Amino acid sequence: MLPFARVTIVGLGLIGSSVARAVRQAMPTVRITGYDADPEVRAIATRIELADDIADSAGAAVIDADLVMLCVPVGAMGAVAAEFADDLPAEAIVSDVGGSKASVLAALRAVLPEATIVPGHPVAGTEHSGPEAGFATLFRGRWCILTPEEGTAEAPVARLRAFWEALGAQVEIMTPRHHDLVLAVTSHVPHLIAYSIVGTASDLEEVTQSEVIKFSAGGFRDFTRIAASDPVMWRDVFLNNREAVLEILQRLTEDVTMLQRAIRWGDGDQLFDLFTRTRAIRRSIIEQGQDDAKPDFGRSH
Amino acid sequence: MLPFARVTIVGLGLIGSSVARAVRQAMPTVRITGYDADPEVRAIATRIELADDIADSAGAAVIDADLVMLCVPVGAMGAVAAEFADDLPAEAIVSDVGGSKASVLAALRAVLPEATIVPGHPVAGTEHSGPEAGFATLFRGRWCILTPEEGTAEAPVARLRAFWEALGAQVEIMTPRHHDLVLAVTSHVPHLIAYSIVGTASDLEEVTQSEVIKFSAGGFRDFTRIAASDPVMWRDVFLNNREAVLEILQRLTEDVTMLQRAIRWGDGDQLFDLFTRTRAIRRSIIEQGQDDAKPDFGRSH
Repeated sequence: MLPFARVTIVGLGLIGSSVARAVRQAMPTVRITGYDADPEVRAIATRIELADDIADSAGAAVIDADLVMLCVPVGAMGAVAAEFADDLPAEAIVSDVGGSKASVLAALRAVLPEATIVPGHPVAGTEHSGPEAGFATLFRGRWCILTPEEGTAEAPVARLRAFWEALGAQVEIMTPRHHDLVLAVTSHVPHLIAYSIVGTASDLEEVTQSEVIKFSAGGFRDFTRIAASDPVMWRDVFLNNREAVLEILQRLTEDVTMLQRAIRWGDGDQLFDLFTRTRAIRRSIIEQGQDDAKPDFGRSH
Repeated sequence: MLPFARVTIVGLGLIGSSVARAVRQAMPTVRITGYDADPEVRAIATRIELADDIADSAGAAVIDADLVMLCVPVGAMGAVAAEFADDLPAEAIVSDVGGSKASVLAALRAVLPEATIVPGHPVAGTEHSGPEAGFATLFRGRWCILTPEEGTAEAPVARLRAFWEALGAQVEIMTPRHHDLVLAVTSHVPHLIAYSIVGTASDLEEVTQSEVIKFSAGGFRDFTRIAASDPVMWRDVFLNNREAVLEILQRLTEDVTMLQRAIRWGDGDQLFDLFTRTRAIRRSIIEQGQDDAKPDFGRSH
């Protein structure tokens, strides 16, 4: 039995268009409706036949949905939900894919006081953006975190779990606050540091940008991939998960300061101990299927 | 005409074994001699036929070489050169592949006062280590930086350039001090930050290591690759390029502090501007063939 029969996807970028493709592949009888605030994106989505129907407004998109999946930047969730609030069927479940959960839940609850809301976050993506960047297998083997409010009935959470599992994901349930802390560590602060280091490198006077590019295979290029992610999406994540990001960033700053001191004073043992310990984490990530075992991420050589 | 006829490779890890394989592929008539201080590595090198001959001592390895390529951690360069100093042919060129150049040049010059030394650094690698991790195409399309002392004759530099070009690399020449600054930006500080962030993530009380691993596809896993690189090699790089690493780290810290403040005060425009600017660098790196154009580094999905 299918968890949902009529799925509406609001926001047709990398994630929204991947959800559409994955649903079509995994559950071909589900009717998919798409909507995007950008008419150009709607035109592309129509042309590449991303959904059974591309609606012209958020309200028209949700009118007969049993699942409404919001795939817009986290700062836009409240506004888009307000647009369709009057047209949302009473029995529909509203979910999302945003990277911060406490703020999204608050924003949605503010404009949809009676709706069944089960916030979610598939931990998957690439550095590319837009409706043509998505692909059906993006969620396969990845984790999707659901963060229901306290007191949410079991049935809608179970249906959403079945939905994500059908797309190939594994599902974990946690509180919005814990999600935000975990993702600050595994995603938000790494992105912030990557953006920062790429910015620093391109601002130096003594090293030219052309040198930075030429010699980027020494490690720098790894950081440029995530620093090429969607700017609006990431601006919104940082503004909406401020507390957890600042907390983890503070911890990282302390640890970097300790390494700085070890380098200044020539404490090789401290460096060696850390560098040995970090190898084990990489091994576990590969063993648990969360990264490619091939050297260099499997880049072509 | 071959730039060298008898190449000795001292240190048979990832880079040394890749040089051996690349030489055999590009210049099959060159006689390759290998040496490694670790008898176990010598046994593996013999078994996999990495060289025409695996010598039992550094002195025996260099005795008839016209190029001696040192592929050991930068902290070990001086000691290994001292071992073979008495056996080095007068006309041999000594080079290396170390990640810091001013310190290596000083260490080699101290024990080889009369030798022709042309330090080098192929900017290439993977996170794997050891004689079996190497491959012949590692240097193809990558840059190799040569940092000759002032007053070095043109001929040895030209021969070494021809050697690296035969292995598929592009060659650039700069001073040791400039190399050390450029690599602090494009390689050393990125590695330090990656090691640090992986360490921070595994030390938190509120987020378990199992959660860090599960949800690493949000960006964190990108950092674990370079944080899995050889601990001895990297300890030595930081101890031997202290000044430049601390200088660039200071710049990065200032920039991170500015972003921290932008997040705290909700300055979305500042975040958006940086995140837009960093996309352009990624594009240039791909355009110039220094990274894979495929999304997610071409990871399998």
